Amino acid sequence: MKIALAQLNYHIGNFESNFQKISKACKAAIKEKSDLIIFSELAICGYPPRDFLEFDDFILKVEDYLKKISNLSNEIAIIIGAPSRNPNKKGKPLYNSAFFLNNGKIESVHHKSLLPNYDIFDEYRYFESGKHNQFVEFKGKKLGITICEDIWNVEGSYLYSSSPLDELSKNNLDLIINIAASPFSYKQIERRKKVFDYNINKYKTPIAYVNHIGAQTELIFDGGSCFIDKEAKAYSNLNYFEEGIDYHQLGETSTKEVLLPSKYERIYAAIITGLHDYFKKLGFQKATLGLSGGIDSALTLALAADALGPENLIPILLPSQFSSSHSITDSIELCKNLNCNFHQIEIESIFDQFLNQLGPLFKGTDFDLTEENIQSRIRGTLLMAYSNKFGAILLNTSNKSEIAVGYGTLYGDMAGGISVIGDLYKTEVYELSKFINRNRIIIPEHILIKEPSAELRPDQKDSDSLPNYEDLDRILFEYIENRMSPSGIIKLGLDKELVLKTLKMVNINEYKRHQTAPILRVSEKAFGMGRRMPIVGKYLS
Amino acid sequence: MKIALAQLNYHIGNFESNFQKISKACKAAIKEKSDLIIFSELAICGYPPRDFLEFDDFILKVEDYLKKISNLSNEIAIIIGAPSRNPNKKGKPLYNSAFFLNNGKIESVHHKSLLPNYDIFDEYRYFESGKHNQFVEFKGKKLGITICEDIWNVEGSYLYSSSPLDELSKNNLDLIINIAASPFSYKQIERRKKVFDYNINKYKTPIAYVNHIGAQTELIFDGGSCFIDKEAKAYSNLNYFEEGIDYHQLGETSTKEVLLPSKYERIYAAIITGLHDYFKKLGFQKATLGLSGGIDSALTLALAADALGPENLIPILLPSQFSSSHSITDSIELCKNLNCNFHQIEIESIFDQFLNQLGPLFKGTDFDLTEENIQSRIRGTLLMAYSNKFGAILLNTSNKSEIAVGYGTLYGDMAGGISVIGDLYKTEVYELSKFINRNRIIIPEHILIKEPSAELRPDQKDSDSLPNYEDLDRILFEYIENRMSPSGIIKLGLDKELVLKTLKMVNINEYKRHQTAPILRVSEKAFGMGRRMPIVGKYLS
Repeated sequence: MKIALAQLNYHIGNFESNFQKISKACKAAIKEKSDLIIFSELAICGYPPRDFLEFDDFILKVEDYLKKISNLSNEIAIIIGAPSRNPNKKGKPLYNSAFFLNNGKIESVHHKSLLPNYDIFDEYRYFESGKHNQFVEFKGKKLGITICEDIWNVEGSYLYSSSPLDELSKNNLDLIINIAASPFSYKQIERRKKVFDYNINKYKTPIAYVNHIGAQTELIFDGGSCFIDKEAKAYSNLNYFEEGIDYHQLGETSTKEVLLPSKYERIYAAIITGLHDYFKKLGFQKATLGLSGGIDSALTLALAADALGPENLIPILLPSQFSSSHSITDSIELCKNLNCNFHQIEIESIFDQFLNQLGPLFKGTDFDLTEENIQSRIRGTLLMAYSNKFGAILLNTSNKSEIAVGYGTLYGDMAGGISVIGDLYKTEVYELSKFINRNRIIIPEHILIKEPSAELRPDQKDSDSLPNYEDLDRILFEYIENRMSPSGIIKLGLDKELVLKTLKMVNINEYKRHQTAPILRVSEKAFGMGRRMPIVGKYLS
Repeated sequence: MKIALAQLNYHIGNFESNFQKISKACKAAIKEKSDLIIFSELAICGYPPRDFLEFDDFILKVEDYLKKISNLSNEIAIIIGAPSRNPNKKGKPLYNSAFFLNNGKIESVHHKSLLPNYDIFDEYRYFESGKHNQFVEFKGKKLGITICEDIWNVEGSYLYSSSPLDELSKNNLDLIINIAASPFSYKQIERRKKVFDYNINKYKTPIAYVNHIGAQTELIFDGGSCFIDKEAKAYSNLNYFEEGIDYHQLGETSTKEVLLPSKYERIYAAIITGLHDYFKKLGFQKATLGLSGGIDSALTLALAADALGPENLIPILLPSQFSSSHSITDSIELCKNLNCNFHQIEIESIFDQFLNQLGPLFKGTDFDLTEENIQSRIRGTLLMAYSNKFGAILLNTSNKSEIAVGYGTLYGDMAGGISVIGDLYKTEVYELSKFINRNRIIIPEHILIKEPSAELRPDQKDSDSLPNYEDLDRILFEYIENRMSPSGIIKLGLDKELVLKTLKMVNINEYKRHQTAPILRVSEKAFGMGRRMPIVGKYLS
């Protein structure tokens, strides 16, 4: 039996575009004389459709397109994911299902049993858990069809009290099929391998795995679709972050293994995909951003140049009386290295006019954070003006460390349509910048070595208000990614006062994060939909 | 048996403050010779604790305080809600539990079985569903202890395949206890009554119901804690939106019924609670907002005056060359009516300076939305400057209609710490304004009758860009609250083109809503945590 794994980039709710891709893949697989083609979870509507699932006409669209796809199954059997209605009067109205299409019709439906509802996942919000999944007999082979989480209830993290494969595999399956929508994090490749190993070891059955690629706002999918024989000698997988179809003969040994070794190679590829798809799926081409001469905006620009093309970027230099001369020269050098045009607008006269108008109210008060924020918001307003006038999306340049502790100005430097490096701690920003410079200098050396500063008052340095980034990032990682307690972090050898002050800053700045752009997610715990904290919560603050 | 229902206002993660309230209530109930006091769901930590539940030290705190509360149970039995650990190796790590405390110790634990995971609820994110809930025998009476959703699997909306009370009530219960965290919407009182009626009718057993009051950021709890005898003659309930303890003898007939009849009486009380608690729980007193002379900012100011006191409000008038003279006079009259100081700052000179600096870039372009947005963002920056300098929280004045269709400027008039009327459609804004004026004119008549305008270009009117608000709000309500399809809405008699254009505007403006302040929730479907839509989604856009 020749099986095609179709790893595609779907677009949520863009049924026609998704259908065209599915149809094209079917035709290609038929040409290659495949017996079966497998698409990923909720492929027909894209993942995650979120509350669109609550709209009846959205489900009607799914059903329309499912019929169209069934019509393609006369020359090839198809397995594809889509929501389906729960015919019972009790329980959630939908299932997250896999359809087995053959001979031009739906031959069977298989419902997802384990519904992830943690971090970025909300599946129990929409779906009833499936019971009694039946295997499919096709060309004399027994296929067990599962959906993503169904194979993830593994040793050490039993989130569910039972696993659908325990029941299913009693039938001596010839193949486990898993259709997935499993988002990227830089640790996900290893996590996924562990899950495959666990299942291969337990059920001694080959696995065909098909995941999404591409990005849906903050969520990025890396693919990694693969075929694994029952000895798990190798994971024959498709290229990460690329659309493609891979063919396997059931029974043959898996061989090819595509590697994406380093953390920063992965993160780089993920961000490029995330940025590219955000623009493409929204129908935009041009981007703007503020270039400060610092490393965050430099890295953001370098990534955007690779994702969108330097010809689509118009960075703007926005110096004030507090800006160093190198903030300009370094930025210009960066633009030159990237072959990218730029504009420059002085903000001092606007700032003066704000101070004039606020003069009577502010009489007798000192220059403080207020005046710093005004400068940042002038820049935000100028960038948004450029964005509005010329249809360029403003890229947010905040990093995870400053988002965590609230070291940024709401409606100022925190503005933007999408946050590019908001899931990278400052220390990771430096590492990814070095990765950008791996072949030739793109980000000028001086940007990499100078001391970070917001340049909002004379001689300001980040280190005036923040601890050194090594310590800060370590505390933040333990708190955010590992949900470690203050006492636990202190036990790691970090200064008690520093730990408590940092965690307090994280918690009291929840209100700022509530109002920021979606952040391209590359870690296992990004700010945004995957981390839901109370704003008026008092804990540790 | 004398039972005390304690309806209290908890603060998420503020364990000591919650404990003090619980302890005080216990002492009062002991004084009244009560046998049992009942507190609401997750009372120890506040509701909803959200991802704080993922932190082990948060759970340790819960356990500490549970022990302290147990110590209070020597003279009175206590039923109280708190998260508890799941001792099994499989499944979610926690239960949402009710503890029965007596004789200074935990006598039994009862786990919530039905876990709401829709709209604003995320309980399956944290909790394992409880099985085999046992009744409690206390003073010769059989008490069935349930938690909120456990009694909500009612006719017509069976979200769950079984109900814990079906099993529990086989024991001939003397009392059903339901501890809840059931947030307000203006339809919630009727919905709750329907649920009580269903359960009383089915199980013929009295119900003691204890809900939260107070607000946690956007979520507002109205209380409505009550005692209902098995004939359901009346719902003896506590005052809505007020802390209090009510006492009942088991077996006595319920009598007193507190009414809160009209929609706008309810919404008014909810918003006052929401605003008040947002400030109190964050430790702020002062608020600012921009007064435009329009009805939205006028209503917001009037509500804030009642919630925070006019002495804590500093509204700012921010006229431009496009402002009408009545935008000033009407605003001043409003401030006078409310006995409230105000400031005035002209924005024209700042606007001119922006245009100067942008001149070279914008050469040859026309005055468009860009220039309108710049004015709005200048106002946002001035208001935030005042906020930063004097520690006053900026109140957002957007209404639900404009938030829905994106008729607002991100980082401009969409700025603010909390959205006060963001869950009221424009037509509801008028109704609530009339309610504000029910006894005397607070909002000047002229504000109520003049045609809505953003005043961002000469002679601008909302009706230049938007349909009339009656039609708009009807379309929005059907789409947002009822999740009706475009064809369904058109069938109601609304213009096809208008419907399609409106729904497209709703969908393509998801990115703006992603970056707005939390919105005080008063309807069954507010923008914010209860409505989760894709940003790059293509459906209907």
